[in-house]
Formats: sequence, C-alpha cells, structure tokens
Amino acid sequence: MTKTIAIIGASGYTGAELIRILATHPDMRIGALCADRKAGMTIAQVFPHLRHLDLPALVTVDEVDWSGIDLAFAALPHGTSQEVVAKLPPHVKCIDLSAGFRLRDPSVYEKWYGDAHRALHLQEKAVYGLSEFYRDEIAQAHLVAGTGCNAATGMFAILPLLSAGVIDPDEIILDMFCGVSGAGRAAKEGMLHSEVSEGTHPYGLPVHRHTSEFDQEFSKAAGQKVEVTFTPHLMPANRGILCTAHVRGDADAIHAALAARYADEPFCVVLPQGEAPATRHVRGSNFVHVGVVADRRAGRVRVFAALDNLAKGSSGQAIQNANLMLGLDETAGLMLAPMFP
Amino acid sequence: MTKTIAIIGASGYTGAELIRILATHPDMRIGALCADRKAGMTIAQVFPHLRHLDLPALVTVDEVDWSGIDLAFAALPHGTSQEVVAKLPPHVKCIDLSAGFRLRDPSVYEKWYGDAHRALHLQEKAVYGLSEFYRDEIAQAHLVAGTGCNAATGMFAILPLLSAGVIDPDEIILDMFCGVSGAGRAAKEGMLHSEVSEGTHPYGLPVHRHTSEFDQEFSKAAGQKVEVTFTPHLMPANRGILCTAHVRGDADAIHAALAARYADEPFCVVLPQGEAPATRHVRGSNFVHVGVVADRRAGRVRVFAALDNLAKGSSGQAIQNANLMLGLDETAGLMLAPMFP
Amino acid sequence: MTKTIAIIGASGYTGAELIRILATHPDMRIGALCADRKAGMTIAQVFPHLRHLDLPALVTVDEVDWSGIDLAFAALPHGTSQEVVAKLPPHVKCIDLSAGFRLRDPSVYEKWYGDAHRALHLQEKAVYGLSEFYRDEIAQAHLVAGTGCNAATGMFAILPLLSAGVIDPDEIILDMFCGVSGAGRAAKEGMLHSEVSEGTHPYGLPVHRHTSEFDQEFSKAAGQKVEVTFTPHLMPANRGILCTAHVRGDADAIHAALAARYADEPFCVVLPQGEAPATRHVRGSNFVHVGVVADRRAGRVRVFAALDNLAKGSSGQAIQNANLMLGLDETAGLMLAPMFP
Amino acid sequence: MTKTIAIIGASGYTGAELIRILATHPDMRIGALCADRKAGMTIAQVFPHLRHLDLPALVTVDEVDWSGIDLAFAALPHGTSQEVVAKLPPHVKCIDLSAGFRLRDPSVYEKWYGDAHRALHLQEKAVYGLSEFYRDEIAQAHLVAGTGCNAATGMFAILPLLSAGVIDPDEIILDMFCGVSGAGRAAKEGMLHSEVSEGTHPYGLPVHRHTSEFDQEFSKAAGQKVEVTFTPHLMPANRGILCTAHVRGDADAIHAALAARYADEPFCVVLPQGEAPATRHVRGSNFVHVGVVADRRAGRVRVFAALDNLAKGSSGQAIQNANLMLGLDETAGLMLAPMFP
Repeated sequence: MTKTIAIIGASGYTGAELIRILATHPDMRIGALCADRKAGMTIAQVFPHLRHLDLPALVTVDEVDWSGIDLAFAALPHGTSQEVVAKLPPHVKCIDLSAGFRLRDPSVYEKWYGDAHRALHLQEKAVYGLSEFYRDEIAQAHLVAGTGCNAATGMFAILPLLSAGVIDPDEIILDMFCGVSGAGRAAKEGMLHSEVSEGTHPYGLPVHRHTSEFDQEFSKAAGQKVEVTFTPHLMPANRGILCTAHVRGDADAIHAALAARYADEPFCVVLPQGEAPATRHVRGSNFVHVGVVADRRAGRVRVFAALDNLAKGSSGQAIQNANLMLGLDETAGLMLAPMFP
Repeated sequence: MTKTIAIIGASGYTGAELIRILATHPDMRIGALCADRKAGMTIAQVFPHLRHLDLPALVTVDEVDWSGIDLAFAALPHGTSQEVVAKLPPHVKCIDLSAGFRLRDPSVYEKWYGDAHRALHLQEKAVYGLSEFYRDEIAQAHLVAGTGCNAATGMFAILPLLSAGVIDPDEIILDMFCGVSGAGRAAKEGMLHSEVSEGTHPYGLPVHRHTSEFDQEFSKAAGQKVEVTFTPHLMPANRGILCTAHVRGDADAIHAALAARYADEPFCVVLPQGEAPATRHVRGSNFVHVGVVADRRAGRVRVFAALDNLAKGSSGQAIQNANLMLGLDETAGLMLAPMFP
Repeated sequence: MTKTIAIIGASGYTGAELIRILATHPDMRIGALCADRKAGMTIAQVFPHLRHLDLPALVTVDEVDWSGIDLAFAALPHGTSQEVVAKLPPHVKCIDLSAGFRLRDPSVYEKWYGDAHRALHLQEKAVYGLSEFYRDEIAQAHLVAGTGCNAATGMFAILPLLSAGVIDPDEIILDMFCGVSGAGRAAKEGMLHSEVSEGTHPYGLPVHRHTSEFDQEFSKAAGQKVEVTFTPHLMPANRGILCTAHVRGDADAIHAALAARYADEPFCVVLPQGEAPATRHVRGSNFVHVGVVADRRAGRVRVFAALDNLAKGSSGQAIQNANLMLGLDETAGLMLAPMFP
Repeated sequence: MTKTIAIIGASGYTGAELIRILATHPDMRIGALCADRKAGMTIAQVFPHLRHLDLPALVTVDEVDWSGIDLAFAALPHGTSQEVVAKLPPHVKCIDLSAGFRLRDPSVYEKWYGDAHRALHLQEKAVYGLSEFYRDEIAQAHLVAGTGCNAATGMFAILPLLSAGVIDPDEIILDMFCGVSGAGRAAKEGMLHSEVSEGTHPYGLPVHRHTSEFDQEFSKAAGQKVEVTFTPHLMPANRGILCTAHVRGDADAIHAALAARYADEPFCVVLPQGEAPATRHVRGSNFVHVGVVADRRAGRVRVFAALDNLAKGSSGQAIQNANLMLGLDETAGLMLAPMFP
C-alpha cells in the first residue's frame, strides 16, 4: 500500500534529492512539502528540474494536515530540527537528516554542537540511521537520526574491521574528499563557484564536528574507546565523498572481513583486493564502493570507501530507512544506477 | 512481456547511458553487450559504475546468439554501423544511434559524410528517430535512426514553429552549447580535461555535419527549402545542450504554438513565457525544457531548448523509440527525474 | 617615476585582479586598500593568494591619506561609486570600474539603472574606458569609466565593423558566454558551485543592462541609431567571455576591417580568417582574440571575440587606462601571458 | 646579459608553462623550441594562447643550432630524455624535467622505472633540482634533474622536519591531491574531461613511482632509512597539488622548524599555526604554502603543503634552477602573483 510522506525543509539539496528519488519510488507519494522561508512557492520556482512532477506547493510546517502523513523527513538545521520534530503528531514517524539526534549522549552533543539539546525525551529513543548496521532497530523505530555524510563514508570503511578485530583501533587516520553540495544551499562566500572550483583545501580544522559520530560508533564497535584522526577536504565537484583510511592490520584479513560483512548487502560493493573506488562511479546512486590496498610496508593498509553524499550519504540512506520503518522492501526506489559521466 | 535487447558498441558513453536507464526499465532486459575492441572484458572493467548489475560480459558482434534478441541498439561510428546493422538477422529490430541512417537522401549523406552509403537498401526504410514527431512511423519501423543530439535540441525549439508557420523560415540562427560527453569516449587531445575545462569555444566550423539534419527536417516541416545558421560551442560540462535560437515572429504566437504542440507530450515542458531553461535542470533525464523570450525589438524572439545530450539527445530517445517499436508504454523506464545538483 | 595608487573596494574579484597585476607592474605601487566592511583585515585574511605581498591592511575610504595617491581604482557598486568618487580630492585621478559613469546621458542611466545619477557634474567629464577606442581622451581624462565586461567583448568584435561600414547595423545579434567571476564575490544562492557548475543558462533576460553600452557606442560608431539583440549566458568557468556575433556583410571585408583596425594594437589579436578563438587562450591576460568565420549562406558572417572578464574586461583594462592617464607605457605590467591550462 | 635558452619537448604542458613564465622573464630569451612530432608547426598552432609572442617555429632536436644556446630545458619522457640530453653539446647546460636523472642510484632507477639507465655518465653528475635544498649544488651544476611534482610538494612539508629531528621518521603518511595537468597532454581515455571531472579517485596504486624520490631524499635528510606511505589522488582541477601529511611530533616544534627553515626563502610561505593552505591560492605561481595543524590526540600533527604542479612543481622550479645555474637573480621572472579566481 502506498505510504504518504512529508518533507520538512524541502528547499535544500537533501530535500531536492529526496524528491528526485521519490519521483520513481513505487510505494511512496509526497503529501506535503514544507519550507518556511519559501512557503507559497511552487516546486517549479524552487527546483525547476522537478517541475514536471505533480507536487504540492511549499507550505509552512504549521500549515500541514498531518492526518494522512505516515512519515516525515526533516531536513533542517540541527537545533531547529529538534524543536520541529518534537512537535510532530505521535502517529508520524520521522527521519531527521540533521545532526540533531545522532549522538546518544546529550552531554556529548552539547560539547560538540555548543547548545543544550532541545528534545531530550526524543533523543533517548532515536536510532542511529546507518541502515546496514542498525537494520532491526530502524525497522522498529519511531525516530531515526540520519548520519553525517562524512561519517557514513568512514563507517562503511572501518566499522566491520573494528567489529571483526582485524585492525588496531588506536591507529586509524581518515582523510576525506567531499563534494560541495554537502555544504548545503545557503549562500556563503566560501561556497561560490569561484571560491571552490579548480582547487582543494582541508576544512573543519582542527576537529570537525562529525568526529563525534566516529567516536560514538567506532568505540561501540570496538568495545573500547576509539579516537581517530579525521581530516575532511573540499573537492571541486558537486557530489561524492572519498574516504582514504589508513589502518594497521593484515590486508587479506581486512579484505576478507569487509567481503564477509557486505556479502548480502544490496548497496555495498567490495572491490577486488588491490582496487580502489572512484566517487564518480557511485554518483546519484545509493551504492557504496569499498576497496582495500596494501601498503608496501607490511601491516599498513589503505581502505577506501566512496559514496554520493546526497544519496547514500543522506537522502538515499533516509529513504532506505523509511522503507524499513514502513515495512516496504528495503531497496524500493533505490536501485537507480549511478550516472556516469 | 519482458523484451530482450542487445547493445552493439556498449563501451562508449551512449552505451553506458543505455545500460544506466535499462537498469530500472521494467520491461527490458539486456541479453548481449558487444564491443569488439573490449570483447572479453566484464562491464565492471569497462564501466565500474555499473558493476553492481548482473550483466553479460562484452563479446564481439559475431559471438552474439541473436535468437532471443528482440531489438539491438547500435552505438558505433556511422560507417561501421551501416555495415554491422546490415548483417543483423531479420527478426532483430534496430535503433542506430550513429549518423549512418539519418539522412533520407544518400547523395546528401555522401556530401556531408564524404563516403558512399554502405547499406542503401536499409536507408530507404529507416525512420528518423525524433520520437515526438515520427511516433507512428517509429512504432511500425524495423530500423530507426537516432538523431544527432544537437539536431534534436534545435528541432524541439523550431520544428513546431515551422509547421505552424509562425516564424520566418529564412531567418533562423541557432547557437548551441554542448557538453563534452557528446564527443564520445575516444581519447583525443582536444577532449582532455585540461583542454576543455574552464572555458568555451565554437567548434565544427565553418559548417557542422549535423546541419544536414536541420536542412532535411526543417525543409520538410516548412514545405520549402530552409537553411539555418548553426554554430555549436563546447561547454565545460559533461552533459547538456542549450539551444539559443534567434527567430522572427510574434512571441505570443510562438509561445502558443509550442504550448499547443507539446501539451500532451510527457517529456516536453514549455516554460512560462519570458523564462529560459537551464541544462542542469534536465541533466540525466529524458525531459526537454523549452522557453520563449521576446527581444526588445518587435518581431525578434529567442527560443531556447535544453536537454541532456546523452539522455533525451541520444540514449533516452533511443529507449523511447524502442518502447514504441516493441509495443511498450512509451514512457517506460524513462521517468527518472533530473539530477540536480 | 613610480606612481602610487589606491584601490577602493579591494575585497572583490576585480580588486584582487588589480592587485595581482600590480604585483609585477614596474611603475606603480599600492598606497592604500579600502574595503569598508572588511576594514581592519589584512590582505592575507581577505585574499590568501596575495599574502606574500607587502601590502597595507584594508581601511575605510575615510581613513585614507590621499596626499600621496596619484590615482584611485574604484571597484564598488555603481550607486555607491558615484558618491565615493565625488568625494575624492581633486588631485586624485580615478578609474571607476562600476557602471556608475559609463552612460553619457544621465536620463539613459536612470532608465537602465532605475536611480537618479548621484554625481552629474562628474558624469559630463567622464571618458568611456575602452582603451583602444578612446586612447587620446583617456590620456587626458581625470575620470575614466571602465566598461562592462560583456560590453567590451562585443565592442572588440563589432565597433570597427560599424566604423568601417562593412556590416548592416540593423542586423546584429550577440550571444555571449560569460564566466561566473563576472557576478562578483557577493554570496548569492545562484552563484554557488552547485548552482552554476556542470551546465549553462541564459541570464539577464529579457534585456541585460549592459545593452545600454552597446546602444551608446554602436550608435556613435555607426552614425545612426543601432539596437542589437544581446543574450548573455552563464558559462561554468571562472573566467572568460566569448562573444558569438551574427552579422551581415562580406566575410573578407569584415576580416580586413578588423585586421586593419587592430594591426598596431598590442593586445588585440586577429586570427586567420576561418578560425575562432577560445576563452581559455586569453585567460589571465590582457589580450583579446578576434575571429571571423563565414556562414554557408552568402552575406552572413560570424565574428567571435574572446577575453578574460577580470583582466581585459575589467582590471587589466583599468590598468591599461591608468598607464595612459599617468603617462606610462600603455603596456606596462600587462604583458603577462595567458595561463593555459 | 640576456641568456638564450632552448626548450626540448615544447608542445606539452610543462613546455607551455616554461614559455608562459619566460614571456615576462627579464633576462632570458627563447632561442629554440623543439617538438619532434610537431616539428614544422608554429607556436600559434600548438598553443594558441601564446600566439602573441614572437617565437621560433617548432623544430626537431637535430635541427637546432646550439651555438648560441646557454641552457636547455628538456621536457620529454624519461627514457627518451636520457638519450637526448646525452647528445647535447658540452657548452649547453641542461635542466631535465623528466624522471630520467632524479635517482642517484641507477639500480634504484632500474627497479622503479623498469629500464636500464641510458646515460649513466651523466647521472653521476646530476643534481636533484629542489632549489631550496640544493641551491649551492645547483648553481654549480651542468645538469639538474627537476623533481617530481608530487615529490616536491611532500618534501616542502617534510624535509625540514626530518633534518631538524622533530618528527618520527617511521610514521609518515602522505595523502596527495593532484590536478590533472600533471598527467600531461598525451591523449588518454582516463584523462578525458568526462572521466576526471566531478569526482576523485586514488591512482598509482599500490606504490607510485615518485615514492622513490621520497625514499632517497627523506633518508638522506633523516640520516637513516625512511619509508613513507604515499597515496596520490586525482583532483578534478587542472592545476595544484595539496599534500596532507600525517606525522608524529610536537606541533609547536614542527611549526617552529618550518618557520625557521623557510624564513628567508622568497617562495615558501609558512601559514600561522592552525591554518591550512588551499591549492587555488598558489595557482599559476612559484609559491608554496605550508601549514601545521595539531590533531586532538597529543603528538599527532597534520602538515599541509600546496603548490602549483606546473609552476613550482615543475616549470617554475626549472626556471628558478636556471636562474641559479646562469648566475641570475634566483627570483627573476618568478614573482608572478597567483591567479585567483
């Protein structure tokens, strides 16, 4: 039976990506689109690429008739999101794409995000939305916290290795290269074409906020405190994240652990050992490609992961989670092939 | 009933785009992939972005068992294509994406392409593959000639205006801006990233070969000889063609003619008068956006059309035609929303 | 003797380009850098690429000691610029890079820019800053109005043809493709990397403001009222403008007129007939490349011009004018070769 | 006194960059341009962006009259280069930009490059061309081996730290992001715009050849065998290399060592501690920007270096070395400011 969903914060890039994927989803329809500042506008005005779709105009959150809505995607800034999600009617399930509900411990949230959590009662029930690692909890959840896109990329490379005990948890270095759409659609000087094209630079120094997600999930997987070195770089491309992870362990064992862990996962592709992925080979899709390449120095290994930050790193992941939460086929609407070139 | 297709010349960009679209097509399956020089390779080696698909390995054309194939897409150079298509078994319908069968008059072909036509008996039965304008003929055809991607873009802007008699057929100027994927995957110095990024230049001077398609179709629509000025420019982007057409007529009548002509077309969107399209709003999709903007000088009008050269301009169009030829829903597999950003 | 200059509005792209060129200018030094909103910041903070230079920190206009300043470049919004330039001490010559002083007739300015001119007494003495066409007046001027970058590009293609009477002044169509740096450094959603990369679209519809410069200069050159059709397009590249001009005349005569007009011009290169320029071949330089290609229809000709909007189209032109105004060698500091790739 | 130089292999990107810089060099003139396969062509045909320069046409190496040539830049493939350089007349000094003479030990060369060295007698006199570290030897040298561009970037970050003993030589990880012009102008499928734009991937796996330069120079500086983990990534930009180096040591001591080492170097800029460089801030220039950012884990530090692979990483470095070899001011012609945007 077709489920009806709402998108809150529909005028940003993750909102557009949700609509793009839902356009050919067999079991979901869009019942409401919210964007407070752009309320009253049509989707053709906000996203001309979606103008062929028969969609409701943008409204404020308060204007939505929630009675027929099964699930809401919230794509808002994290503080605002906590407040908005807290006001949703009880029957509406929710996937929050912000950082608002990712961290289990509110004091950790406060440390990294600088504000007190505004919806503590919801936080304790929220499930971390990495579909492949919290599948059962997500299927039962009322509120799922979408992961950071950098965080997801690093976790696909590292989490199975910590769980399997095949790498040294004290020696993990993550260098990441991220497309500019991850910074969102807000007009900032630093995201102008002239400022980010034709070059690269690291950002989020000295310690990026998403590090907190690594701390939480890696420590849990390893059964001990794990702290990594994480350095994101802005890549002059719209979509895509590449994680180049430096770890210590045996390359064969590492590759075997990943191959075993992802053998039955429809969206996770482990490349033949010695091969590395490219972000353009997953663009526009819900796939993640993982590769393992030994260093010449024994015991040192590079593990690579590539995904599309707007798709598998955000909106695709969200729809995968929504499929689980609504009892649909987990892959419904998500088998779109990557777009290359 | 699922139809089985083959792709001849599967290792180029139009081949990749056919496979991308077919990956989620409900009624077609890929029975054979041919690429003579890359025969023996897997699709994972040729197109790593398609490695998650369960596809046959590449073979030579001679190795194909055609018994179960309903239709073949030929994505080869035009001269080669004439020879290969001529050897297909009689039961196999064919859509040729090259320039090999586009020109009705073999002497015109010889003039523009410099070689004698190698399959004259097929040429006389070939239908020009502009789906919206040859729908009925295509549905009955055994061989359809896919249009040039520049040609298709210009025709969506101009053909209805000539048919309706609302513009002066002697005063048509077409400036086009084309993404680099239109040049194909062959390694040429002029298509290196360093040669085409961060700038633009006109190409195909003084007269581009695709002009011959305009001559043929525009003259037919106008019922008189029509010659246009056509100047293509290389745009530093992978996908997309924008046609900026300068015509003489009344802007209201022009907009009305386009709106009327495309009212029932699922893939043709006419923008509100005064608005112009952007190539990035049709990227990765089978849609074409058309806009009309009057000049300040009375009687002078700009008509814009934007489409994705690999999709609506080539492989998407081909699948639309295949749907027609195989008795399927014309839009099957083609409602993928554009990818932005 | 070294001249001392000031830059007002130094934190934008034209400001940065002035500093870049001046860094190796043999006869000018920078005495003051103004940027009201960024006053107090160092150039290393505003433009890290210039941090190796020994430059004064940014100050407000009011803080400048003008006593030692020979000439000021004003790179401000046009309304503000009129006010600021009006307050400069009498001994300070000025080149205004905005649209504030380009239009000779204040009523025309008001029509196109929507505001009353705020410095009428200066307007009547301002010289239009197209160096190659107003060289003598510029050398004598106290105030020079830098041209629009689109305007300059079109004029290099067309002005000599109108003066020589070799084209029909009623049949001029200008399609232009402009890099995004022309839109400046202000943070706007429409100039984000995700919004402008990987595609193109026309802008400034239905009639772009810079059309007024064409009206003024073309009419003057032709000795009759000339109105053109001008359609700018945003190109996904940082720098460069290509003008594709459609004119009526004899290609040989057109090429000869351009060759004769630019024979002694150090920065104007006329390509062999039949060749077209590329924006990337003038990037970062003060050169303009002009080409002439006949259409297959007799009497119809395409004239192309390519320049760098920040250099020859703005800051390079300004320094060329400053050289003239200060009695220096016109080419001083401006022979930097284009940067390719 | 003006020196006369020749460029062998003038039709590639490093050749073009040499000519670009030499166009405004006060003390050098170009006496001969060689490009065997393009002999007979003018520079306007090979590099239209340089057509305004008065340059000799391309000739074969054998056609050059070497009598007036002081120094030759050889920009050829490494094997060919050894043969060509060996045939130069004795009075002609040479800077070889290939990998042909970089490795002191011919057996190491053979191991990494797979061929026997073809000019052993020259190898023993060749000086490694990292100007800031071999200044005196270069000034006396007859043959200088230009460094790899990746190698140079990593060395600017790491060499002073090994010499000063402030980092653990066994714990060095170098992740690099390199513009596509580093791959040269040869037509390869993998370097087409459609293949490298809008995404990233690591290359040169499992061990890139330039690792051999790190082994040689780092071991020498540290006084012990040093092996690093080096992983280059292709960045979708034409120019620029960013090195993100992970080292062990004290951030303050590391920053101090770099600041001390580069205090008097005209082209090396050490950023304030905690800041990281961007490749676009050195584009088109001979500058290298170095930054130090501590990790949250004590004793772990990131050292960043950014330079332009064609300029400081190759042709700019070569001219800096030529200045030294010819007794000119080391910075002559090289103070061009970076081009941004």
